Amino acid sequence: MNAADRYLTLSARDLRFELEELYADYAACLDEERFEEWPEFFTDPCIYKIVPRDNFERGLPLATWLCESKGYLVDRVTAIRKTAVYAPRYVRRFVSGIRALGWTDALLEVRANYLALETLQDELTRVFNAGQYRDQLAVEDGRLKFREKICIFDSILVPNSLIYPL
Amino acid sequence: MNAADRYLTLSARDLRFELEELYADYAACLDEERFEEWPEFFTDPCIYKIVPRDNFERGLPLATWLCESKGYLVDRVTAIRKTAVYAPRYVRRFVSGIRALGWTDALLEVRANYLALETLQDELTRVFNAGQYRDQLAVEDGRLKFREKICIFDSILVPNSLIYPL
Amino acid sequence: MNAADRYLTLSARDLRFELEELYADYAACLDEERFEEWPEFFTDPCIYKIVPRDNFERGLPLATWLCESKGYLVDRVTAIRKTAVYAPRYVRRFVSGIRALGWTDALLEVRANYLALETLQDELTRVFNAGQYRDQLAVEDGRLKFREKICIFDSILVPNSLIYPL
Repeated sequence: MNAADRYLTLSARDLRFELEELYADYAACLDEERFEEWPEFFTDPCIYKIVPRDNFERGLPLATWLCESKGYLVDRVTAIRKTAVYAPRYVRRFVSGIRALGWTDALLEVRANYLALETLQDELTRVFNAGQYRDQLAVEDGRLKFREKICIFDSILVPNSLIYPL
Repeated sequence: MNAADRYLTLSARDLRFELEELYADYAACLDEERFEEWPEFFTDPCIYKIVPRDNFERGLPLATWLCESKGYLVDRVTAIRKTAVYAPRYVRRFVSGIRALGWTDALLEVRANYLALETLQDELTRVFNAGQYRDQLAVEDGRLKFREKICIFDSILVPNSLIYPL
Repeated sequence: MNAADRYLTLSARDLRFELEELYADYAACLDEERFEEWPEFFTDPCIYKIVPRDNFERGLPLATWLCESKGYLVDRVTAIRKTAVYAPRYVRRFVSGIRALGWTDALLEVRANYLALETLQDELTRVFNAGQYRDQLAVEDGRLKFREKICIFDSILVPNSLIYPL
């Protein structure tokens, strides 16, 4: 049985375990600012989007971030490391309520809530951005990766610039 | 073995899996504003209460919300959909630290922490309400449902009206 | 097979279950203010530290709290119960993204994110402190305990005194 088939036949319980591990690793990668490893959580091609909930629910195309390939994710990392000018900050992510909705054509539909906290230098930690992940996962190189990851956030405001991925 | 017996004999590990699924589904039902599905998470009869921690710990009867039957839950949903006048908002729930304390007379005692974030239109996302779920679950229609759900919140203040369930 | 060996040979899935249980119990012990039970989560000897992330990452020794033995943890509890003068408050802890990094010499390296909310009397619930647990666990008395627990928090500010453990 190849890796893709193995995932397709996992019990709901074993699949939850795999997803808990994946989302914990994903959040830690970003929280620990290992941004160079971030694109490796995605298949190639892939879609990564950050959109306000209002736009998403009305079907409006406007996205705050839109990456339509893995190369684009790498570009984002380069921007964080070299180009962008921004105040130093820590972002910490909490993922909760992971739900596997099922497989369709070797794509696994997953939902989860995320909360990102932000801490600017000499400031208190505060709620930065919260919303829902609407993800499609596929098996690539023997493990689950994001074929599509949409971060739909509840507020159209963010207290500060969106510098780091969610 | 009937469904109730199956749940009663689950290992601690399998029970945790069932609870993780249930609480994720419960939060998503409310976060996604599928309020009509919410009463289906409860047995009939049931108790649903939202109370400040101070009142709960002193044994005071006053509750912010008190629903003493499934019909009452349905009434709440009608109020949300048709009666209540309130500013549009998104509420998002994070459940953490689920603990199964054990079965007594076919009732499963469960504790968990919840955090509800609220986002009003054109405002930042903020902490709305946080506390502990003190729940009693029973098996009905072959699955775990809430026989009693008490949301005990830490602050006697809420930044805004409590419109949606927790 | 003794208890220590049993833990060492657990599958990743079973180990995640054990850690989810442990961290839920740990948070509940503190949230419910059963402080006398708190030192029992630690081995003897043990290290418990709360440090700002900046200090930790620069290798600076300064810690906000430093307990270098189980007796020191007990002293902390005595201070909370008898010595310290502070405004009444509730603290509630959310643990997310637990990751077991592996065993070295019978010590299990674990990471997780934590968020502590605080509610002062007649005030709203707010973000109090958030950061990463960097823990080393060992098997003692047949169960997993903290040989070392370091709470590395993102903000050098705390909105109020740090009275209760994290």
